[in-house]
Amino acid sequence: MAKQIAQYQEGESMQLFALLKEAAAKTTSAGKPYLALTISDASGEISGMRWDATPDEIKQLQAGKVVSVKGQRETYRDRPQIKIDSIRLATESEPHDPLLFVPRAPETTIQLKAGFREFFYLIDEPVWRKIAGHLFSKHGEKLFSYPAAKSNHHAFVGGLAFHTLSILRLARSVVGQYPNVNAALLYTGAMLHDLGKTIELSGPIATQYTVMGNLIGHISLLDGEIVQACDELGFDPESPKVVLLRHMILSHHGLLEYGSPSRPQLLEAEILHHLDELDASIMTIQTALNKTAPGEYTDRLFSLDNRRFYRPTNEETLKKS
Amino acid sequence: MAKQIAQYQEGESMQLFALLKEAAAKTTSAGKPYLALTISDASGEISGMRWDATPDEIKQLQAGKVVSVKGQRETYRDRPQIKIDSIRLATESEPHDPLLFVPRAPETTIQLKAGFREFFYLIDEPVWRKIAGHLFSKHGEKLFSYPAAKSNHHAFVGGLAFHTLSILRLARSVVGQYPNVNAALLYTGAMLHDLGKTIELSGPIATQYTVMGNLIGHISLLDGEIVQACDELGFDPESPKVVLLRHMILSHHGLLEYGSPSRPQLLEAEILHHLDELDASIMTIQTALNKTAPGEYTDRLFSLDNRRFYRPTNEETLKKS
Amino acid sequence: MAKQIAQYQEGESMQLFALLKEAAAKTTSAGKPYLALTISDASGEISGMRWDATPDEIKQLQAGKVVSVKGQRETYRDRPQIKIDSIRLATESEPHDPLLFVPRAPETTIQLKAGFREFFYLIDEPVWRKIAGHLFSKHGEKLFSYPAAKSNHHAFVGGLAFHTLSILRLARSVVGQYPNVNAALLYTGAMLHDLGKTIELSGPIATQYTVMGNLIGHISLLDGEIVQACDELGFDPESPKVVLLRHMILSHHGLLEYGSPSRPQLLEAEILHHLDELDASIMTIQTALNKTAPGEYTDRLFSLDNRRFYRPTNEETLKKS
Amino acid sequence: MAKQIAQYQEGESMQLFALLKEAAAKTTSAGKPYLALTISDASGEISGMRWDATPDEIKQLQAGKVVSVKGQRETYRDRPQIKIDSIRLATESEPHDPLLFVPRAPETTIQLKAGFREFFYLIDEPVWRKIAGHLFSKHGEKLFSYPAAKSNHHAFVGGLAFHTLSILRLARSVVGQYPNVNAALLYTGAMLHDLGKTIELSGPIATQYTVMGNLIGHISLLDGEIVQACDELGFDPESPKVVLLRHMILSHHGLLEYGSPSRPQLLEAEILHHLDELDASIMTIQTALNKTAPGEYTDRLFSLDNRRFYRPTNEETLKKS
Amino acid sequence: MAKQIAQYQEGESMQLFALLKEAAAKTTSAGKPYLALTISDASGEISGMRWDATPDEIKQLQAGKVVSVKGQRETYRDRPQIKIDSIRLATESEPHDPLLFVPRAPETTIQLKAGFREFFYLIDEPVWRKIAGHLFSKHGEKLFSYPAAKSNHHAFVGGLAFHTLSILRLARSVVGQYPNVNAALLYTGAMLHDLGKTIELSGPIATQYTVMGNLIGHISLLDGEIVQACDELGFDPESPKVVLLRHMILSHHGLLEYGSPSRPQLLEAEILHHLDELDASIMTIQTALNKTAPGEYTDRLFSLDNRRFYRPTNEETLKKS
Amino acid sequence: MAKQIAQYQEGESMQLFALLKEAAAKTTSAGKPYLALTISDASGEISGMRWDATPDEIKQLQAGKVVSVKGQRETYRDRPQIKIDSIRLATESEPHDPLLFVPRAPETTIQLKAGFREFFYLIDEPVWRKIAGHLFSKHGEKLFSYPAAKSNHHAFVGGLAFHTLSILRLARSVVGQYPNVNAALLYTGAMLHDLGKTIELSGPIATQYTVMGNLIGHISLLDGEIVQACDELGFDPESPKVVLLRHMILSHHGLLEYGSPSRPQLLEAEILHHLDELDASIMTIQTALNKTAPGEYTDRLFSLDNRRFYRPTNEETLKKS
Repeated sequence: MAKQIAQYQEGESMQLFALLKEAAAKTTSAGKPYLALTISDASGEISGMRWDATPDEIKQLQAGKVVSVKGQRETYRDRPQIKIDSIRLATESEPHDPLLFVPRAPETTIQLKAGFREFFYLIDEPVWRKIAGHLFSKHGEKLFSYPAAKSNHHAFVGGLAFHTLSILRLARSVVGQYPNVNAALLYTGAMLHDLGKTIELSGPIATQYTVMGNLIGHISLLDGEIVQACDELGFDPESPKVVLLRHMILSHHGLLEYGSPSRPQLLEAEILHHLDELDASIMTIQTALNKTAPGEYTDRLFSLDNRRFYRPTNEETLKKS
Repeated sequence: MAKQIAQYQEGESMQLFALLKEAAAKTTSAGKPYLALTISDASGEISGMRWDATPDEIKQLQAGKVVSVKGQRETYRDRPQIKIDSIRLATESEPHDPLLFVPRAPETTIQLKAGFREFFYLIDEPVWRKIAGHLFSKHGEKLFSYPAAKSNHHAFVGGLAFHTLSILRLARSVVGQYPNVNAALLYTGAMLHDLGKTIELSGPIATQYTVMGNLIGHISLLDGEIVQACDELGFDPESPKVVLLRHMILSHHGLLEYGSPSRPQLLEAEILHHLDELDASIMTIQTALNKTAPGEYTDRLFSLDNRRFYRPTNEETLKKS
Repeated sequence: MAKQIAQYQEGESMQLFALLKEAAAKTTSAGKPYLALTISDASGEISGMRWDATPDEIKQLQAGKVVSVKGQRETYRDRPQIKIDSIRLATESEPHDPLLFVPRAPETTIQLKAGFREFFYLIDEPVWRKIAGHLFSKHGEKLFSYPAAKSNHHAFVGGLAFHTLSILRLARSVVGQYPNVNAALLYTGAMLHDLGKTIELSGPIATQYTVMGNLIGHISLLDGEIVQACDELGFDPESPKVVLLRHMILSHHGLLEYGSPSRPQLLEAEILHHLDELDASIMTIQTALNKTAPGEYTDRLFSLDNRRFYRPTNEETLKKS
Repeated sequence: MAKQIAQYQEGESMQLFALLKEAAAKTTSAGKPYLALTISDASGEISGMRWDATPDEIKQLQAGKVVSVKGQRETYRDRPQIKIDSIRLATESEPHDPLLFVPRAPETTIQLKAGFREFFYLIDEPVWRKIAGHLFSKHGEKLFSYPAAKSNHHAFVGGLAFHTLSILRLARSVVGQYPNVNAALLYTGAMLHDLGKTIELSGPIATQYTVMGNLIGHISLLDGEIVQACDELGFDPESPKVVLLRHMILSHHGLLEYGSPSRPQLLEAEILHHLDELDASIMTIQTALNKTAPGEYTDRLFSLDNRRFYRPTNEETLKKS
Repeated sequence: MAKQIAQYQEGESMQLFALLKEAAAKTTSAGKPYLALTISDASGEISGMRWDATPDEIKQLQAGKVVSVKGQRETYRDRPQIKIDSIRLATESEPHDPLLFVPRAPETTIQLKAGFREFFYLIDEPVWRKIAGHLFSKHGEKLFSYPAAKSNHHAFVGGLAFHTLSILRLARSVVGQYPNVNAALLYTGAMLHDLGKTIELSGPIATQYTVMGNLIGHISLLDGEIVQACDELGFDPESPKVVLLRHMILSHHGLLEYGSPSRPQLLEAEILHHLDELDASIMTIQTALNKTAPGEYTDRLFSLDNRRFYRPTNEETLKKS
Repeated sequence: MAKQIAQYQEGESMQLFALLKEAAAKTTSAGKPYLALTISDASGEISGMRWDATPDEIKQLQAGKVVSVKGQRETYRDRPQIKIDSIRLATESEPHDPLLFVPRAPETTIQLKAGFREFFYLIDEPVWRKIAGHLFSKHGEKLFSYPAAKSNHHAFVGGLAFHTLSILRLARSVVGQYPNVNAALLYTGAMLHDLGKTIELSGPIATQYTVMGNLIGHISLLDGEIVQACDELGFDPESPKVVLLRHMILSHHGLLEYGSPSRPQLLEAEILHHLDELDASIMTIQTALNKTAPGEYTDRLFSLDNRRFYRPTNEETLKKS
């Protein structure tokens, strides 16, 4: 596999394909045009300037394109930077699909879909299974490519499906351990809880909030989708079983302050909220620790109240007798 | 008009028709059956015991019935109480409609409906007007009998319509004063903002939260109703105009902590939130001050952060030159 | 099995053995001595008066004794009450061990101990295993009889061990699902996290906080016990591995406001905190739902922010095709 | 009307009169003197450097002066900047009054004063009217030139009077709608509520907090002014009517956290607080939306909890049938 | 000295003079008049019923009078109660001054005044000393009889002066220890900080908040008094020295949430706030501990965040070698 | 005494010895090596670049070394900067001890130790005195060189001892004024309260948090040290007197949110908490005011809720008659 951005050292010559993440045409104080660029791949990103950019370059080098770059890794104001020697668009015969250059879930789409199917068959209540089935027909494809969030946890292609499946697996061990839990309700709720993010977010690459994401939010968007599904399936959206399911979605952020219009009032809703937080926390911390040297602290993690986490050294964790 | 409960003095003989608000059959320590009763009318309520209740009385005197009572107003543990001499159900030829004995809005239903109609014609955007029309066909009748809340502000028959109309009138003066406000959006939002309470609450008398009121809440219930209305009217519930309207409803509590899943992000949504709070505060305070003597403080008002309000004396407010 | 307190109906004659939970000698306004009593068993409790109590009765009927009672179930001020006809101490030949009349964990002590042993052998780091072993030798017996809290969750005999074992089981499924978790650290932390409660609380019956429980708290008490254990085992309590373990204990309440002197800064500490909350919430809700009829709400649960939880009806949860 | 700062495009030549808002003499690393300047007019502001500034220029170009500038609009670090070709003080025969170059209220001073007079005559309680009259004689002129705040809402010349008058107009519609409101008290309170800002702030241009503004604040400053007015008018500042008026001023921020030493305890004080918030919110949002393109969000608005507001597109708001 | 209320034991005969703290005329369910009374002295209070009260008794036994009582100490609903055998007003020749029966500061008025005088002469800045002198001429007498609060800390006759003097003494040791403190400013601020309570509270006995105490509060009341004093002394209330002094008063609660309209911005203001809290906390805890047995906890102390404090046993504090 | 960094004016030639606080080797965009340096002494610090740094210079000029520097004081981006003409390591015969160039407590180590000794002899309870003695033998030397915090208050050499001694002196005046305070407990608690910082922090120069400082914190670290001391002295760490002392340490931050695992529940613990806050506040404000001109405000002080403090002018504080 080709060398990736994060693998180059200070001072080393770079030659690689990468995604053009940002590209802004600017002018020097002397009036000369240049491009301020950021290139990225699954390993990370680096910025650099294309001085004396030609009009052609300014026109072609748009964010979202894949490029072939040569240059050198340097440091500018304490941050890594690439001194660009040459840059051009990747051709048809070279790697040129942007999705090749973004981080991905640790399981393949096929594995993720197989994982979901298993739980789908465990929903032995027909109303809930039909609503879940209907909504997956409509939005399911996006689930397997979207990230679980704009940044923070599971911010990678397929992250939304991977996060959902992790929660389902934790839910299965909870169901096995506590006798009174309604498994079908918990699984349906878990499966649908974040599906509204396929409407709230713009897509897997250069993810932004849509206008309806901002004004309505993924929780109420999915609640509306369940109402629509009921209309099409012939269920009354205010009948008892649908009300229980809607409550699972509406309450899964746990606290009003976190955007849930009602707090959990069902055992299964309380469980879903805890598992959602648990999986998001673990994934956020693991991702940050992977970028941290042993004996050091991660950056402050915004979604975890700005805490920093410590990565123990080998000495601290190696077993000795 | 007949003398009402609140108008009787300590020690005075009472004779009146009233609503049986609570009626519990109990047994004395000596093993004799009795009824613990609370009777109410628009002016207030008073409790009393029916000692030595006959089996017939225990059967007939159910909460929700209208009764004819004779007795005497006394004090027991610092609270007024009626010593009941006789009590029986009101007959068909006497006042016997429970709605006669509950507090009502200061405008009649006809006046309230006329008030609404006026604003309905001011909604000059067809999508919003059709949705409003559809939802009023479906839930409008309840709007004119329901209270605006289980307790607190506007907790009287017709309170929900009266509260909504007050906001619409305040909205009209805001529209007249600030040039950039979208009047049609503000009026539609104001008109619909609390309509979900007709699903959240059980009805105008002995008002309780329904299960779906607890699990979903009036804000999300109405959002679901708008989605349903769109399906029936052929609008896309995620099209821009519907999204703006849904945002008006979803954000009208202003803060996530107060149950809105998103905070106001439109000028009109911010205005609606402020007018809702303003009208609810004024009505809560006025109701409490009406029960308070000049120079005294109201009880602590729960919905106003447990503040007490002062009713000035004549000396403090009379004009003199 | 004999009929228990909660199984008697209004008006029914009662005859049973029970624990005397409270017993206060008082005097009527007429100057006659009586006893205000509360009796309890694993199913619940009920209060009653022993009128005209003899000096002998006043001397013998002390809280903590097992008694044989006859009487009748009545209602006084909306609460159930027993009208006591006769009451005496249980004899040696009758059930007289107070532990027979308190609620117990759903697994036997033998099962709980076997469950613990399994995890103990999974701690493959010698420093942590030795500390855990040392502390279980010292405080382990109490762990299997103490409740997990004075009230709230797991407030029954063996509750502390049952709660700890549930967390260990959830931890095992987390270890299986996320690759980077240090299993030995997580298991040791989980095993010890609430062991300080055996010092903080007075015992399994009539549980109170001890003075050192109030002034120091179970978190710092156990941290002190780990330091003592290190001294006796020859480890430096400020060496890296011990520091990691102490952090697991000190941070397990998650927030400073909840009494942890530091917030979780290790992945394993964050997981332990979440699993602790998850298990405590589930057990609190299950216990409350078991006392609630279908279609009704539990009382407000203090440890869950005063929320009430809904127990769905059969109609809402039965599967139909 | 001459072209204003905000109307120039990237790359365009600029020639205009403007107010010198900031002017700092500095030295390049090569030791040459230059001036870092910011010029502003009612439309906005722009910064630029005067390289190789002469000693005369450094002496004359002081903040607060009006200048004639020629140059070119460029971009530096993502922000607009003017490349200055020439700059000199405006002469007596050119526009040279700084007040010509600051944003102003949408009504003229004459209109604002007429608006106030109308409400002044509606105060039919002599004590309140005399106090208001006295304070307007003393501080009124400043009211019509000061902004309502250092930044945020109504931060323009005359903003304080415009904000006050808007509240008075809203108050009139509240008085018309709710029967029990004391109009004279509400109008006097509204009229005086922010008058202390004429002492708290330094003036209409380059507005800063004064030392007494910081140490005492506009609320207590005006309370002190009322006490002084009473002394001069022969009223007792602790007599009932004055106490009611002082309470209106002291409580108008609504919450202790917002600097009111007591929370509203009069109906009229609660209303004043709500109207103050309503008008400030509307004006803040309108000002921000005017700088925002349709379909975009405003910057985060500090005084509105850092929310961003959305400006709908034409498609979203145009009426169609 | 005569035996006081708190010194009688359960069942003991009582005979004493006491203050009639509360006296309410009521009627039994059988229609007979009786009086519900509470009597108090410096040691505490106790309630009791005067059954079959004569019209004369009902007329004479008013709250605030001193009475001679005979009866017996009993227990009713877990609270001590006096069974009244006889009760009558104290005569002129008996102890009949209500101030004899209320708790008092541990120093005499003469001692307290001498203490104040000492600090008064330490204020070597004429403006501050004159203002302090003026306000003590006007309100000083009340200072030496009023309590420092309606309940909580220093709720005894002379408590306000005693609290103020304690702060002044602590302030002196701070001045001795830190070189940059302006002693004159700190002493003047300390001396005046709570003087507004003589207007906020109704008096030393049966202390209530006055209307102006509720609507304006002691902080703003004293600020107004300083303004008045300036008018009479010929100082400008907005001149620098007066502004510093007003800031001391306005900010002494430390936080806006505690009713200070501005937070401390002077070193001396920060110190005054801390010393005020320190002295109030110590006095509140000492008072509560004095009512608590060794080895027990105080009741929850409202003004200290509902904490309970522990009174150590002799074993825990006795010195042994 | 030689001229210090803060005493040089803009444009002045500098020649001085200083501590090299930061030294980072970097490369210009043209590929030339340079050093980014910050030098400091007790008066402050200043940054500068060493252009064209030789390999020898890059190797020798390490942070922590003392250097001899010549250059000129300039301004770069509104901050002072030194243009370095020459720089070299100080020789053995020149001032070369880093401790000479850091700010120090206003009392000498000898004075501080004498101050401590005095209080040590006032601890007349043997258990507490022996524990204090043991811990001072172990950690005392560090106490006299460490700062009291990484930044904020007392961030200078000896600051920890100076802060502790100031609290002891304030404690003595509290003991003299309130009769019920246990002096021995208060003095021992005050003496030990921050001793854990000698483990939490890395040392007197370039102070950082240690890993165990982050994961355990100085409060729990010292609690552990007390337990260890008990083991070595033969005391039971859970015996009553030790529990009281441990509570003093554990609760001294006053609030759970500030890191204390339990809130003060002893009078002495509440006093210690207040004195700790008082001394830290005074020292923080004094330090900031010393850097502020009369009539100006300090920077925002983070540890004091971001407040700014005002330094009065002479006019405001000078006495005149």
